Amino acid sequence: MSRVFNFSAGPGTLPEEVLQQAADELLDYKGSGMSVMEMSHRSSWYDDIHKKAEKDLREIMNIPDNYKVLFLQGGAHLQFSMIPLNLKNSGKADYFITGNWAKKAYKEGAKYLDAKAVASSEDKQFTYIPKLDESALRSDADFLHITTNNTVYGTRISEKDIVCLDNVPLVADMSSNILSEVYDVSKFGLIYAGAQKNMGPAGVTIVIVREDLIKDTDSLVPTMLQYKTHSEKDSLYNTPPCYSIYICGLVYEWIKKNGGVAAMQKINEEKAKMLYDCIDNSKLFKGTVEKPYRSLMNVNFVTGSEELDKKFIKEAAERGIANIKGYRTVGGMRASIYNAMPVEGVKALVEFMKEFEAKNA
Amino acid sequence: MSRVFNFSAGPGTLPEEVLQQAADELLDYKGSGMSVMEMSHRSSWYDDIHKKAEKDLREIMNIPDNYKVLFLQGGAHLQFSMIPLNLKNSGKADYFITGNWAKKAYKEGAKYLDAKAVASSEDKQFTYIPKLDESALRSDADFLHITTNNTVYGTRISEKDIVCLDNVPLVADMSSNILSEVYDVSKFGLIYAGAQKNMGPAGVTIVIVREDLIKDTDSLVPTMLQYKTHSEKDSLYNTPPCYSIYICGLVYEWIKKNGGVAAMQKINEEKAKMLYDCIDNSKLFKGTVEKPYRSLMNVNFVTGSEELDKKFIKEAAERGIANIKGYRTVGGMRASIYNAMPVEGVKALVEFMKEFEAKNA
Repeated sequence: MSRVFNFSAGPGTLPEEVLQQAADELLDYKGSGMSVMEMSHRSSWYDDIHKKAEKDLREIMNIPDNYKVLFLQGGAHLQFSMIPLNLKNSGKADYFITGNWAKKAYKEGAKYLDAKAVASSEDKQFTYIPKLDESALRSDADFLHITTNNTVYGTRISEKDIVCLDNVPLVADMSSNILSEVYDVSKFGLIYAGAQKNMGPAGVTIVIVREDLIKDTDSLVPTMLQYKTHSEKDSLYNTPPCYSIYICGLVYEWIKKNGGVAAMQKINEEKAKMLYDCIDNSKLFKGTVEKPYRSLMNVNFVTGSEELDKKFIKEAAERGIANIKGYRTVGGMRASIYNAMPVEGVKALVEFMKEFEAKNA
Repeated sequence: MSRVFNFSAGPGTLPEEVLQQAADELLDYKGSGMSVMEMSHRSSWYDDIHKKAEKDLREIMNIPDNYKVLFLQGGAHLQFSMIPLNLKNSGKADYFITGNWAKKAYKEGAKYLDAKAVASSEDKQFTYIPKLDESALRSDADFLHITTNNTVYGTRISEKDIVCLDNVPLVADMSSNILSEVYDVSKFGLIYAGAQKNMGPAGVTIVIVREDLIKDTDSLVPTMLQYKTHSEKDSLYNTPPCYSIYICGLVYEWIKKNGGVAAMQKINEEKAKMLYDCIDNSKLFKGTVEKPYRSLMNVNFVTGSEELDKKFIKEAAERGIANIKGYRTVGGMRASIYNAMPVEGVKALVEFMKEFEAKNA
């Protein structure tokens, strides 16, 4: 077996320790004589896994007691509908358009609400985070929607940079940077994230929602799309994606063991600095977003020549630096350095970049 | 490692060979250096897995070319909404109420359509399949919904027992008996099934739908709930539950290798006969459904004494006959003998039943 350094943007790399434990337990989970895949979701075996995953997530994110944690299906995409359908009240919602997914969320929201794009960076292909003026925000909006990390272009909104109104619930898509840096959950009304970047396999979506926002919806909202349905049954209304939740639980445990989210953030800042320093000191490679908004998770860069980009991606793959190609509509390179990407992986990439530059610049 | 015979109704037992292969490949899929959980859903590695799973399913179910195969999320429960939302035309739909899930499908359907319960066996706690009179069916209905196997009570509708009208699409929930016996797909408009009983882990739902039934819906239907969204993108509109699809693919391969669905049916009939014969020849154990409607997959029985039932379940578990307890609202015993339950498992159960009867009758 020889593992590569996998820079995929999602599904992305997982901690090797977690995968090893999953492999060891795959046919017989802790003496149960069964795989986790084969367990009834009503069994005490699975119940322990389900509850521990929630407990550990609450601990590492410091989630207050008045928030529910839901394990749902359908990805962030389904949340684009569920959020307006469940949070609708005045019928207005503000969206901060800082990337592809933010725009998709806004478009889907506009089917159900008077959705307002309060600011957008589409004018420069989402390569920066625009200034958000409080005066653009509506005090009677049902929520303000933001995307804390833009996976495609590689920008981010840290907690200190968030602009919002006190009385309007802040809704955040954290799919690509949840658990990578510290956010104070109590400042949000709802946080959601597909698991497949920083938490586990595709197929489970985490929703962390303040209890007062879980209300009766219009009865025509599909039962499975009502937060209340899942909240009342602790995400066991129907069969949840048990195995994916189990893997997420192992990842939460791994984060706890490694010092929690603050420790992850410290390492992530170091990893990102190594890579951005290399880019900034290079005569060949150029970063593609404005410096103050650089993502800790997705680092985009180009050589300026499509041909050289291709060569770089190919040669990188040959030495086990995999999936470094940029998003299909963007091009260039993108190194996704999620929690599970070891420092050694980033070092190997930086080394190769220097070598490639020496040969090709 | 010591595996039990796992009679869980779902998530249920999977072929040991499949689990062994999954364990072997967990950290490094065929030399890719990655787990299937870590692969981009746009990668060629995953694309091969995705396409092969579909191809093999088409082959073993003999799915005609004018049907789409979709890998979705949300379980059968989400289909209860998606079916009426997508198939709505005249606004009428007929439901055949033969169990818990059939009733749930009907109730959810009634939110969107003029839903008619064309027959029901609820009068006798779903312990039989009622006679369905063609005259009860509406020729202008958008579909007739049936449930081919009732997991909770243990009844089934084989293909030869299906009553329907030629021009009304037949929609079938096959969650608990898909791939266990031969059905002619061309007789159905739409077949759906959660994977977690006969196909793989919870978290993926298979929808097999005739192309002419995939239409534009009302624009207010959430994008993720439109068949068209997924059909146009071969279930890759957003990140699918890749790992669960991979495991399903291994199960399809296993079925192919073992002679296909017809061979599965033959073994399933043998396994079921062994168990029902044991019940019918017993003075202690009684079956709980009418004989002509007995399920091949879920075999329910009781001793007549709650105390003895409990003792039986406990002592069975002690010798590795696990999860034989009946559904929470039903009680008694239920042995779920899906494709992956080996004949040896059923033999062990029958042997134990005889032994238990000798000691306790």
